[in-house]
Amino acid sequence: MSTLRDVETPALVVDRMKVERNCARLRDRLATMGVALRPHVKTAKSHEAARIALGGTPGPITVSTLKEAEWFFGHGFTDILYAVGIAPNKLARAAALRRAGCELGVILDSAQAARSLDAFCRAEGLALPALVEIDTDGHRAGVKPDAAELIEIGDVLRENLCGVMTHAGNSYGSRSLDEIRAWAKREREGVVTAASRLRAAGHACPVVSVGSTPTAMFGDSFEGVTEVRAGVYMFMDLVMAGLGVCRVEDLALSVLATVIGHQAEKGWVITDAGWMALSRDRGTANQAVDQGYGLVADANGRAFGDLVVVETNQEHGIIARRGGGAADISRFPVGTQLRIFPNHACATGAQHARYEVVNGGGAEVEARWDRFNGW
Amino acid sequence: MSTLRDVETPALVVDRMKVERNCARLRDRLATMGVALRPHVKTAKSHEAARIALGGTPGPITVSTLKEAEWFFGHGFTDILYAVGIAPNKLARAAALRRAGCELGVILDSAQAARSLDAFCRAEGLALPALVEIDTDGHRAGVKPDAAELIEIGDVLRENLCGVMTHAGNSYGSRSLDEIRAWAKREREGVVTAASRLRAAGHACPVVSVGSTPTAMFGDSFEGVTEVRAGVYMFMDLVMAGLGVCRVEDLALSVLATVIGHQAEKGWVITDAGWMALSRDRGTANQAVDQGYGLVADANGRAFGDLVVVETNQEHGIIARRGGGAADISRFPVGTQLRIFPNHACATGAQHARYEVVNGGGAEVEARWDRFNGW
Repeated sequence: MSTLRDVETPALVVDRMKVERNCARLRDRLATMGVALRPHVKTAKSHEAARIALGGTPGPITVSTLKEAEWFFGHGFTDILYAVGIAPNKLARAAALRRAGCELGVILDSAQAARSLDAFCRAEGLALPALVEIDTDGHRAGVKPDAAELIEIGDVLRENLCGVMTHAGNSYGSRSLDEIRAWAKREREGVVTAASRLRAAGHACPVVSVGSTPTAMFGDSFEGVTEVRAGVYMFMDLVMAGLGVCRVEDLALSVLATVIGHQAEKGWVITDAGWMALSRDRGTANQAVDQGYGLVADANGRAFGDLVVVETNQEHGIIARRGGGAADISRFPVGTQLRIFPNHACATGAQHARYEVVNGGGAEVEARWDRFNGW
Repeated sequence: MSTLRDVETPALVVDRMKVERNCARLRDRLATMGVALRPHVKTAKSHEAARIALGGTPGPITVSTLKEAEWFFGHGFTDILYAVGIAPNKLARAAALRRAGCELGVILDSAQAARSLDAFCRAEGLALPALVEIDTDGHRAGVKPDAAELIEIGDVLRENLCGVMTHAGNSYGSRSLDEIRAWAKREREGVVTAASRLRAAGHACPVVSVGSTPTAMFGDSFEGVTEVRAGVYMFMDLVMAGLGVCRVEDLALSVLATVIGHQAEKGWVITDAGWMALSRDRGTANQAVDQGYGLVADANGRAFGDLVVVETNQEHGIIARRGGGAADISRFPVGTQLRIFPNHACATGAQHARYEVVNGGGAEVEARWDRFNGW
């Protein structure tokens, strides 16, 4: 068994105990509330993590790319929702998954995209179940719950229509748990309204899907909703901690770094974890506590509290006190290992090809989990 | 021969003609000025691009990771400078490259790191040539040209000392070409001063290495300098265009995207190129012209001028006018291909595993170049 001391840095570390605890928390909550969970695997891109999220076995998942769909299908996951509006040039690849036996669903939000899908399915003699994306927060994509185009899309899709979905991405900008609850209410009400309108127009609409980590964790009701999607909750991150969705102690993901130098006059500690290892994500920049490019902890994952990565270059990270004050560099000689909790688990994970798996704060590496990137 | 129409998006596109032109520009300039070029391959991470930079054959290169060193050594490049302060836990891997016949050099900026290297070399019976990193701009790492520690490092390194190097990273924040020239002067004078001090203390100091793309392109003199390092110049990017280092027409790198939907009321065009494809880099945010997450062009790479990616999520990009005004969405139906010029070529390249190579603005894909990430 190796330890983190033997791991060449920078490296991505995940604490399995924390993943299990985070996953159990949402799974138990949704089970109590009587709604199904379809975890989003875009954060972890790891079949081990997805199995933990689902209680040990494959089950329904959400993906953000067709490569994720193919990879998870190859690892025994058969019920997959590809939750980014399908482009016409991706229909053939989606169809190949359906023909291989994958229960793949897609999403779209325009009559134009619906007509592309319909024409493709007719030409190929194939069904491709689709959810209509509903815009419940003005955040990004989707048709409004009351839009005339919603019914037009249903009329084009006909038997390919299997429901509606939404994502309250704006919940990430909340300033309180009450604000998150308000976004969750709006998310639920919007998508339930859309489902009702499609049903009133004569369309079956069995699936009503919502989700973001904040609204999944704090929504007061999922009445009328059939499934909840969330992904970052498996690992959590500083953005979620800043929102009050979790504690810093719940953060399962960190980047292992090594001290390579100092600037004594400035009280800077320089490490080998720059933006290539941490990502360029500055998701806490507009929160009450700006964590720079990440919160610094010791090699066992105990945060120092006021040390953050204040600046990054490609392969350099500069550590100082939050706000820029000098760190006590004598505590961190060249060669010292540190761990950095990232702002955004999805973005930081994407910079790496594997996880070093520890368990409960120790330095022993009990496993390596593969992850992947690309399309 | 395939065309970009057949490429599934998002995908990274490089225009070979522009790479050749950008590379010739710096190569010719430095040849005229009588100083050697050691291109930094951290941006391209492509042996094809590195060969173009060197005029068609392998030659001296700079790398940012030992994985780059190993990969390029495997592709025929033998003279390699690893230009990030060497951590003690990476010495063994560096030594393995030396033993395999690679002329690898490393850098460091403290007596502590020098003692680690010295102890390692004695224990292994090995030479590991090192440059001392000099801080000429207060940007990041390095000892000051006049620091007492510089001589101490030389005394510890003895026969492993082979010179000095610096990187004027602060030149990226310049507001004019004159400011870039001033950084270049400071970069050159600082490192030449450091070399003189080491020589006066009895140390041979054959290598005097400087470089950043802005200072390499605009420095008035390289007197006393033996080599220039630069990397982003091969591709150029919006940050460089914003600095006046190049024109938008010189940008060789772009991300191919497909329109997946719209928000008609807001004039938003939504594509499948989010921050996973573009990176989270917002390097133009503090320049005179903020290009959002990238400047939008047609499929042949002709920029529209005022359309930028105003927001990104993991696999979604939102296009509108610079400043947020509505785009004319009727020009961009679902399925339309677009190209996005990135803020920062290093960061955007890092999100991809290969280049689709076009030549001179056309849509014909003449080759695929591999690239790689990780450590």
